[in-house]
Amino acid sequence: MTGAAEAGAAEGHEHHHGYITDKSRYLARLKRIEGQARGLHRMVDEEKYCIDILTQISALKSALDGVAMGLLDDHMQHCVLDAARSGGPEGEEKLKEASAAIARLVRS
Amino acid sequence: MTGAAEAGAAEGHEHHHGYITDKSRYLARLKRIEGQARGLHRMVDEEKYCIDILTQISALKSALDGVAMGLLDDHMQHCVLDAARSGGPEGEEKLKEASAAIARLVRS
Amino acid sequence: MTGAAEAGAAEGHEHHHGYITDKSRYLARLKRIEGQARGLHRMVDEEKYCIDILTQISALKSALDGVAMGLLDDHMQHCVLDAARSGGPEGEEKLKEASAAIARLVRS
Amino acid sequence: MTGAAEAGAAEGHEHHHGYITDKSRYLARLKRIEGQARGLHRMVDEEKYCIDILTQISALKSALDGVAMGLLDDHMQHCVLDAARSGGPEGEEKLKEASAAIARLVRS
Repeated sequence: MTGAAEAGAAEGHEHHHGYITDKSRYLARLKRIEGQARGLHRMVDEEKYCIDILTQISALKSALDGVAMGLLDDHMQHCVLDAARSGGPEGEEKLKEASAAIARLVRS
Repeated sequence: MTGAAEAGAAEGHEHHHGYITDKSRYLARLKRIEGQARGLHRMVDEEKYCIDILTQISALKSALDGVAMGLLDDHMQHCVLDAARSGGPEGEEKLKEASAAIARLVRS
Repeated sequence: MTGAAEAGAAEGHEHHHGYITDKSRYLARLKRIEGQARGLHRMVDEEKYCIDILTQISALKSALDGVAMGLLDDHMQHCVLDAARSGGPEGEEKLKEASAAIARLVRS
Repeated sequence: MTGAAEAGAAEGHEHHHGYITDKSRYLARLKRIEGQARGLHRMVDEEKYCIDILTQISALKSALDGVAMGLLDDHMQHCVLDAARSGGPEGEEKLKEASAAIARLVRS
């Protein structure tokens, strides 16, 4: 049994992050993003045309936005929703924290 | 009857939007934003220097982001949190709706 | 002869901004943007649903980006290109100034 | 023969991209960006807290904007300026191409 499966089995006593069901999909997307970053390095190293590099940077930023929106969505549907349902002040705190993360994303 | 419920009843609204406590502040900010938009029109009409107009457009976009983040925050702290606490499927729906609005903001 | 045509005839002795040929179209777009800003104020005043207001803010930001990109394009095709063709250091300066304006737009 | 023309000849390239003088600095920045992308993958793999991952994504997007603005600046100061100074239609074309790249960046 892997550590992750074990943590899943023990659900509720260890913190169980919302995105875990899609974990392999996120890892695959981030592998591609890592490849895109490596591709940018290679393009500059090979002195490719500047405008083509800028196009790749825009594509990479869009891919990052896609992952960020997915993670945020999952986080709100699980972590924030659970905290809100618990009724205590944790719901407000989780939402405040999510808002601050959203503001950073909107400005980045 | 709580003060909040009373206020809702007094206003004859079934739905009580979260930003209402700060309403006059939002209205003042949006008045300024309207003035900035009118200023842009005047700058083009008077054929001001293009770069100065672009600077004003950036400032206006930042002001709009500020209002959007404030509204989103209030919406989540009230409307979304209340829906989540009610325990039904409405919490998930409200969060899904908020996520879609955030995605539009991140891309705009 | 209109004032604009006159200014065109006198080209080179008064500063002739690049966007002037499309001036009426820019003014119409900015009138609409002003109307959108006024609409936002009204939505908050009438306590419309928060998510609908956020959607309008995203639309307004996109409209501003459209005007900004148009102005920037015109500015580069006229003002920057003319300065560059003159051969002096003014070309570099104009480009540096345009870059700074672009950086503000990308971050706003 | 100017130093710049000599460098171009020495490198055996007909086309001499503007960012070459800072090439090693760009490569170092892109190496760091690649490391940040790899770090994101690891954070998801280790199931780090979602908000912390979002913060890293915002930081990565800002780093990419920094590289993009640097490359754009260099491109305009060299490639676009040279094309404009040559006097032919290439100046307009280069500016049009740069505008399209900027529009993609503003929206990404």
